[in-house]
Amino acid sequence: MRYSKLFGKTVKTVPQDIAFSSHKLLYKAGFIRESTAGRYYLLPLGMKVHQKIQQIIKEEMDKSGAQEMIAPILHPIELWKETNRTNSVGFELMSVKDRNEAEFVLGGTAEEMLVDLVRKFQISYRDLPFHLYQFSTKFRDEFRARGGLLRAREFVMKDGYSFHDSEVDFKKEYQKMKDVYKNIFERLGLKTAIVESDNGYIGGEYCHEFIVESPIGESKYLVTEDGSYAAHEDVAKFKRDEKNLDESEKDMEEVEAVRGKTMEEGVKLHGKPLWQQIKDVLFVDEKGRFILAIIRGDYDVNEVKLMHLIKAYRLRHATGEEIKDKIHSEPGFISPVGIKEIIDSSIELVIAADESLLTVKNAYGGANKKNRDLFNMNINRDYKPDIIGDIALAKAGYATDGRKKLIEKRGIEVGNIFQLGFHYSSKMHDACLTADDGSKKPFYMGCYGIGLGRTLATVVEVFHDERGIIWPKNTSPYQIHLIGLDLKDETVKKRANEVYELLTTNHKLDVLFDDREAISAGTKFTDCDLIGIPVRLVISKKTGDKIEYKERQSKESSLLLEEVLSKI
Amino acid sequence: MRYSKLFGKTVKTVPQDIAFSSHKLLYKAGFIRESTAGRYYLLPLGMKVHQKIQQIIKEEMDKSGAQEMIAPILHPIELWKETNRTNSVGFELMSVKDRNEAEFVLGGTAEEMLVDLVRKFQISYRDLPFHLYQFSTKFRDEFRARGGLLRAREFVMKDGYSFHDSEVDFKKEYQKMKDVYKNIFERLGLKTAIVESDNGYIGGEYCHEFIVESPIGESKYLVTEDGSYAAHEDVAKFKRDEKNLDESEKDMEEVEAVRGKTMEEGVKLHGKPLWQQIKDVLFVDEKGRFILAIIRGDYDVNEVKLMHLIKAYRLRHATGEEIKDKIHSEPGFISPVGIKEIIDSSIELVIAADESLLTVKNAYGGANKKNRDLFNMNINRDYKPDIIGDIALAKAGYATDGRKKLIEKRGIEVGNIFQLGFHYSSKMHDACLTADDGSKKPFYMGCYGIGLGRTLATVVEVFHDERGIIWPKNTSPYQIHLIGLDLKDETVKKRANEVYELLTTNHKLDVLFDDREAISAGTKFTDCDLIGIPVRLVISKKTGDKIEYKERQSKESSLLLEEVLSKI
Repeated sequence: MRYSKLFGKTVKTVPQDIAFSSHKLLYKAGFIRESTAGRYYLLPLGMKVHQKIQQIIKEEMDKSGAQEMIAPILHPIELWKETNRTNSVGFELMSVKDRNEAEFVLGGTAEEMLVDLVRKFQISYRDLPFHLYQFSTKFRDEFRARGGLLRAREFVMKDGYSFHDSEVDFKKEYQKMKDVYKNIFERLGLKTAIVESDNGYIGGEYCHEFIVESPIGESKYLVTEDGSYAAHEDVAKFKRDEKNLDESEKDMEEVEAVRGKTMEEGVKLHGKPLWQQIKDVLFVDEKGRFILAIIRGDYDVNEVKLMHLIKAYRLRHATGEEIKDKIHSEPGFISPVGIKEIIDSSIELVIAADESLLTVKNAYGGANKKNRDLFNMNINRDYKPDIIGDIALAKAGYATDGRKKLIEKRGIEVGNIFQLGFHYSSKMHDACLTADDGSKKPFYMGCYGIGLGRTLATVVEVFHDERGIIWPKNTSPYQIHLIGLDLKDETVKKRANEVYELLTTNHKLDVLFDDREAISAGTKFTDCDLIGIPVRLVISKKTGDKIEYKERQSKESSLLLEEVLSKI
Repeated sequence: MRYSKLFGKTVKTVPQDIAFSSHKLLYKAGFIRESTAGRYYLLPLGMKVHQKIQQIIKEEMDKSGAQEMIAPILHPIELWKETNRTNSVGFELMSVKDRNEAEFVLGGTAEEMLVDLVRKFQISYRDLPFHLYQFSTKFRDEFRARGGLLRAREFVMKDGYSFHDSEVDFKKEYQKMKDVYKNIFERLGLKTAIVESDNGYIGGEYCHEFIVESPIGESKYLVTEDGSYAAHEDVAKFKRDEKNLDESEKDMEEVEAVRGKTMEEGVKLHGKPLWQQIKDVLFVDEKGRFILAIIRGDYDVNEVKLMHLIKAYRLRHATGEEIKDKIHSEPGFISPVGIKEIIDSSIELVIAADESLLTVKNAYGGANKKNRDLFNMNINRDYKPDIIGDIALAKAGYATDGRKKLIEKRGIEVGNIFQLGFHYSSKMHDACLTADDGSKKPFYMGCYGIGLGRTLATVVEVFHDERGIIWPKNTSPYQIHLIGLDLKDETVKKRANEVYELLTTNHKLDVLFDDREAISAGTKFTDCDLIGIPVRLVISKKTGDKIEYKERQSKESSLLLEEVLSKI
């Protein structure tokens, strides 16, 4: 490709609101342009990288036995209603009506579509297992879209769906996909951590994210030093250390407590440790239920864990007015003790306790009245949670059950794999296979996704320096960046063109040839470093019958004879 | 691929509303499934064919120097408003709002998007010409979607857009694309006619369709026997033969005419030839203008030609009430003579005459009153059209200007190329290049499209017999269909598996291996003919250490030695 003819040349300045290196460099070097927030054009250079990533994913998926296909982008909304995802996905879903008033969801993920397809066939145990995957444009109506390709509203995703007759069979595929994904990311030059994570609105019981460590990543996760455990903060499990369980339970008493609303003010006033306090957080879920989350004072509530425990998909904090007018309690003084007796009779209140409250006796905290506290609250004696479980946010320094210390990391999620089990096949009618005894049973599923644009941006986040991108060989848009200098000199020009022909025609190499005549050497070198192709060749008056060779990452260049080129 | 593991096996019956062979066969053989009307899944077999078509198009486009990129699917509606296409495209356009109330068009074609992209760069004459293309999903909200992939509401299109600094430069690209498209379709096994056609809502001055002749095609076009002229019926030009021009103009007279509303009744009543009659058709356009189209009695009005002449983009017939109450004329008796004097003053009426009225004298027809006709109407004496031009429908048997007879044909439009000229760059701000003298001028454009799904279906329309599809080599999902019979016999099974390995691993051939044990030979042969892979190999007890070889199109089979396989 002659750079003079390439559409999407480098520019010197980038818009001020561009924050991340990958966004800045991909913009500056001419790989992408924004259409509207979160929607991007891939320019010819960006397209080539995107295709290389797609090809690597395709090769590994095909090798694994998965079969490529494609589903429509517009999904009939009836399918999403069958699984109730029109509610659970919430605002991220865009929908559109056609001229006949049929309504469609703009696909963000395609579980229902694939189940709907598979149930059109009368599949039997003999047809299983199979794994179908596609590359297709996905839509997420994110409230804010920032960060270039790292978080777009429209992007190409490789999404795969596997169908099995049993959990045992599924687990083999799940393990296989872990390996396939690891291979894919390795070929792309990315080191990934496989991290237990939350399944969000996808459903199912467990899932893993593939995370590339990065300070700009949105995924916070916790790992043990030896790497034997890695989990997203929304699901990370840790051991609650036992506190004063050997203490005997004292009588509960109500005391005056003229204090503010914070936990610290309670500690200061009563001179008791933070861990002995009960922390109360009141939420309202999507059904209008009030949820009182209670936890040991030295821990924090994780809302994702809480939602799983109480089976809700949206939470908001209750307002001060709701606490006063509907719960008849007092902000900063809420207590699980006796709360169900004072609330409006129309209100459904769920008390959800973190298991940490089982590690403390004689706890203290609010008394549902302003400036009144309770001492010696004991779980299952003075208050009975509706449900006890894990709703605590994991943090660095906590330990696993096996007493290994957790370290906190940040990273970019580039892929994820989900156990879906019967989540979809049980909700959607006829999502069955015929077993070998002739009976019908729902099929068992898994799903597997890689965001291509985000992966592309992650490669740039990992591989760049202050001068520009440093493409790994497998993803570089071209293999060689050939620079012609002094092209107004006919001899040099002729030689540069001959070498370009030699490389492309004879050696079938993929070459970007900077053949611009009116551009200075300095600008060409700067552009070359910015674009980031691994190998730079220069032909100029000075190089004579040789060619200057330099790798993008190295500072040294050397002069090569033409014959050596074929070895590149 | 082992057929036992393939998703999307053959079925015996198809839904009753499936009419076309391609739709029926692609459904039955397991290449496609419908999601909702006009939206299709490509199953693994269909996907492979689709990818082969895409690859051939990509190779030819790249070879031509065009650069692949991709634009978002959701286009900001503001861009479509800049060019007024939100109006001109009409109902086919779907739009969607995001959570921030930003409105987007679901892209059906991407002229505005590409102009918007290009104007983000400060391009100069040095950067031109360039041609950008993409493969992306397109949306058309067709009122009815029938015919499988032949007319879908959602489909992948290769759309390309070229940018030039002059018409001269554009014309080179236009000619090049004619050749590129011809090559593409030839490689796909399709013979195409290049037919002048209407540019619809795309804009520009001229365009051509690539049409594969087929009785089920929706494109009606006219060609001369020698093929030197081919044009869609909406644009086909033909010579109006001169009638009684040597007659002298007689005085106009009004006569009683107790007749019905048809042309034939006028002919019968007055005993004058049909060609001497004036045919009047009254339309209303999208702006509410009334359009009186008049033409010689032996011709018919073509609405597309009429719309071009009067610069409208939607027409409907005026109702009987409108003719009476607003025009104050009479259905069946409309006349251009004096009509502007009798209409409501609030009404804008445009009289558009076909040039055929210049070939006749002393015409007769209605008198704008019931049962009253006029004799001896003469154009430019008794009535003055606002505009005279070509609004006549071309038909078989008419002659070109060069006196060559036109033949009528039907076909499927698989591609089209458009001159856009300044149509978009003049409507959209800053769609400019810097010329070599430093001045700014709008760029000159062309665009070029191929629908992949329709092309795929067309291949099947052309290549099939009563037993199934007959894929040309270049588009076949697999190179070889290997059938194993008697697979319960361990020796045969072992040999079949060995041959499969040999073909795929050693010879790197793409093989579909029917390895099903519980399926009869008859069914396997039927499935094989239905799926349509060019070469069939059979291994059974009977074939011993040889292999039966048969081509899909031939009736004869022969026994081959294993070594011969490498030659396939």
